[in-house]
Amino acid sequence: MQDFIELANHLADEAGGIISPYFRSSFDIETKDDTSPVTMADKAVEKRLREIIAQHRPDDGIIGEEYGIQESKNQYDWVLDPIDGTKSFIAGRPFFGTLIALCENGVPILGVIDQPILKERWVGATGLPTTYNETPVQTRTCTTLSSARLASTDPHYLKYNLSENLRSASDIMIWGGDCYSFGLLANGNLDAVIEAQTQTYDYAALPPIIEGAGGHMCDWNGNPLTIESDGNLLAVGDIALKDTMLEILLKA
Amino acid sequence: MQDFIELANHLADEAGGIISPYFRSSFDIETKDDTSPVTMADKAVEKRLREIIAQHRPDDGIIGEEYGIQESKNQYDWVLDPIDGTKSFIAGRPFFGTLIALCENGVPILGVIDQPILKERWVGATGLPTTYNETPVQTRTCTTLSSARLASTDPHYLKYNLSENLRSASDIMIWGGDCYSFGLLANGNLDAVIEAQTQTYDYAALPPIIEGAGGHMCDWNGNPLTIESDGNLLAVGDIALKDTMLEILLKA
Repeated sequence: MQDFIELANHLADEAGGIISPYFRSSFDIETKDDTSPVTMADKAVEKRLREIIAQHRPDDGIIGEEYGIQESKNQYDWVLDPIDGTKSFIAGRPFFGTLIALCENGVPILGVIDQPILKERWVGATGLPTTYNETPVQTRTCTTLSSARLASTDPHYLKYNLSENLRSASDIMIWGGDCYSFGLLANGNLDAVIEAQTQTYDYAALPPIIEGAGGHMCDWNGNPLTIESDGNLLAVGDIALKDTMLEILLKA
Repeated sequence: MQDFIELANHLADEAGGIISPYFRSSFDIETKDDTSPVTMADKAVEKRLREIIAQHRPDDGIIGEEYGIQESKNQYDWVLDPIDGTKSFIAGRPFFGTLIALCENGVPILGVIDQPILKERWVGATGLPTTYNETPVQTRTCTTLSSARLASTDPHYLKYNLSENLRSASDIMIWGGDCYSFGLLANGNLDAVIEAQTQTYDYAALPPIIEGAGGHMCDWNGNPLTIESDGNLLAVGDIALKDTMLEILLKA
């Protein structure tokens, strides 16, 4: 696992170096979708990360947002999202992140969230404590929804009824975090993160980070996340919140 | 005006020094509302800023979130919000800001947004170009709503119907920014920010910043903001968006 972690850190370093110059650049120039700064950064990163993986682990599969699926010749698949939170990136908010995951037989066993502008990185791996900038972190104890701090990225995807139910039942609910919210959950600043309609590359990096910090992550039916999950996500810092949260999510 | 700007910068420096140690601290300890880190920071900052203003400008009025109104003996009022975006602060997101405004006869003439963790500061004053970390900034040209990047903090306050109308008519809509979104608008990263049900201390600092960067700010009836406005806010980077936006807001 240490070799995998080293490679994942190397991939995140490379991604950050490519992304940073594009952040808050050229936003006064109207460009076509396929040549916008965010798309150029996205593609350049994924291309580079695929090269590095091919060099170090030629038989591993790769699932990326921009360049699709390269079939695995063993039990390993790397899952890449160069810029998770493209809207925040476009709006100049340093809240996007590079997501790098390694799955074994379709199950996430290693995940990295990297925020290259703020120089914040979370690394989680099965059986090891999650680290934030190399320091182990832990989720917070929170046993009741009424005292819980929730986050979700967009009320449109979550649906407005569900948004309102979650907001009124919790202590606070914040919006617009993307992958950064899962990092804050690992650090014990948030108690639950709820997302709907995500893709494999949006979530594969997250379960090892959340679980290595003492939290729990599942789909809205309570099942563990795999490469084939439906993309509706629940992460809780304290397992005591799981059933209450699932009840609200299933009623939605 | 240069003396006022110097004093406002001094106030922001003091606020940042007090707030920073509280950020992401003690979040594992359950506390009563009145002794939570955010409340302690809020009160400590406002107390200190009131002392400094009393020392330099004893006749000016002060309107603060925590300690109420001190009547003005001249035409000037300082308006203070030590931590705008308390939910982001509580959740460990460096997206809150200290807001400092100076009003003359109830009209904002000077405003500061300060983000002490990321070391980002916007300063706007009537007749002067708005600066971001001491460099002049400008809003972006954007003449159609369909190409506009919008932001609002919370769909609950905006109301979900209006949120959905704005989202579907625009290019992108992001959530959860508080005062930081107005800074990004001044920098040309966003095109419009819409907020509902805010207080005087939430908005008084913003018009000089937006207008000094080439944008425009008003209430939902299109009127300029004063100390007595109703707290429904529209900021646009390009005045060409104003009428289209107001039409949608007035239908809500």
